[in-house]
Amino acid sequence: MHVEKSYISPIATTLIKNDQLAQLAYTEVINSINNMTTTNLNYFSINNTSKNCNGVVPIKEKCYELLEETYGWYREKPLHTLSSKGGPIDVYKEFHNNNIVFHVGLEFETGNISSAHRSMNKLLLGLHNHELQLAFLIMPTSKLSYYLTDRVSNYEELEPYFGLLENDAAIILGFDAEQYNSEAPFLQKGKDGMSQRSIRKWNNR
Amino acid sequence: MHVEKSYISPIATTLIKNDQLAQLAYTEVINSINNMTTTNLNYFSINNTSKNCNGVVPIKEKCYELLEETYGWYREKPLHTLSSKGGPIDVYKEFHNNNIVFHVGLEFETGNISSAHRSMNKLLLGLHNHELQLAFLIMPTSKLSYYLTDRVSNYEELEPYFGLLENDAAIILGFDAEQYNSEAPFLQKGKDGMSQRSIRKWNNR
Repeated sequence: MHVEKSYISPIATTLIKNDQLAQLAYTEVINSINNMTTTNLNYFSINNTSKNCNGVVPIKEKCYELLEETYGWYREKPLHTLSSKGGPIDVYKEFHNNNIVFHVGLEFETGNISSAHRSMNKLLLGLHNHELQLAFLIMPTSKLSYYLTDRVSNYEELEPYFGLLENDAAIILGFDAEQYNSEAPFLQKGKDGMSQRSIRKWNNR
Repeated sequence: MHVEKSYISPIATTLIKNDQLAQLAYTEVINSINNMTTTNLNYFSINNTSKNCNGVVPIKEKCYELLEETYGWYREKPLHTLSSKGGPIDVYKEFHNNNIVFHVGLEFETGNISSAHRSMNKLLLGLHNHELQLAFLIMPTSKLSYYLTDRVSNYEELEPYFGLLENDAAIILGFDAEQYNSEAPFLQKGKDGMSQRSIRKWNNR
């Protein structure tokens, strides 16, 4: 996969330019997206036989696996602000440089457009309350989402709302496949296609 | 019904205190909530026989009917910013005072918590883009929602996110019934119980 479209807020732009830890976080996320490839290929080939013919969860799982196993990110980081209400941040890492700690959160959206609004607001809440200093929201582009799970939200659909992020250190990435091919393997829907690997949960660290 | 809990942002508080049109808008919304009553009673009596035993849509429809027919609000006001993407604002009114126009939008949330985030963001977008100068989001309290449609979102569930509204002219109202009674009439689920009245659409004005 690769990032086809992106929104990087002014604050996030400055951070990536000037802050080594923000730069590192950004690089790790981009690398994880780029390294999502079809087995035995060095690019991603998506089956385009018919609308909604692939599941989206295997893509998310592959991205999280890379973030966890290559870069040591953690899953399911609770926000203090939300306590028992609302779910944790999907993926999280604390970047260290001497005594400095830089907190980064990421959500890979696989739900509908309402769910994307909730993910965005959860990240914003983390930023406002200084539990996160940089936040990523990752979504398929509209073009790719046509071949994924029905009603999965896409970058363009949320785009009119990106202005709500302009005063926060937020990054939205829209990813796309390199190849559309009717011979490509289907991505399984539901949880059937998921590997049995154990995830790196924040609470078990 | 009555407002049991409310969040009024600092800017909205100042507006209601100092601006006649904002005051009028606030009064009309509060009156419409207060005037939602059970037929032949001067208060709202909710059937509390079992969890999820009432539909929520008839409550919303009653509130909108009052706003439209008593106070001349319009339904389905498109936001220029959203153009074809995303739905319109549920209810809208332009308040006039000589040459001054004050634009107010309102959403009565009857969806799940994700949908409430989308409604909140839609109102925020309208405020940010100066298409709205005051925005209301109306939801049942947690106590009441227990007896309404399954998974309908409630005031307390969204409450951790109210901080995202602190720099905008936003008001969230959590309403509750006056009486919980196993003899009260059930509120129908789905669209079966809805009256056939024609709504006052903005585009038909």
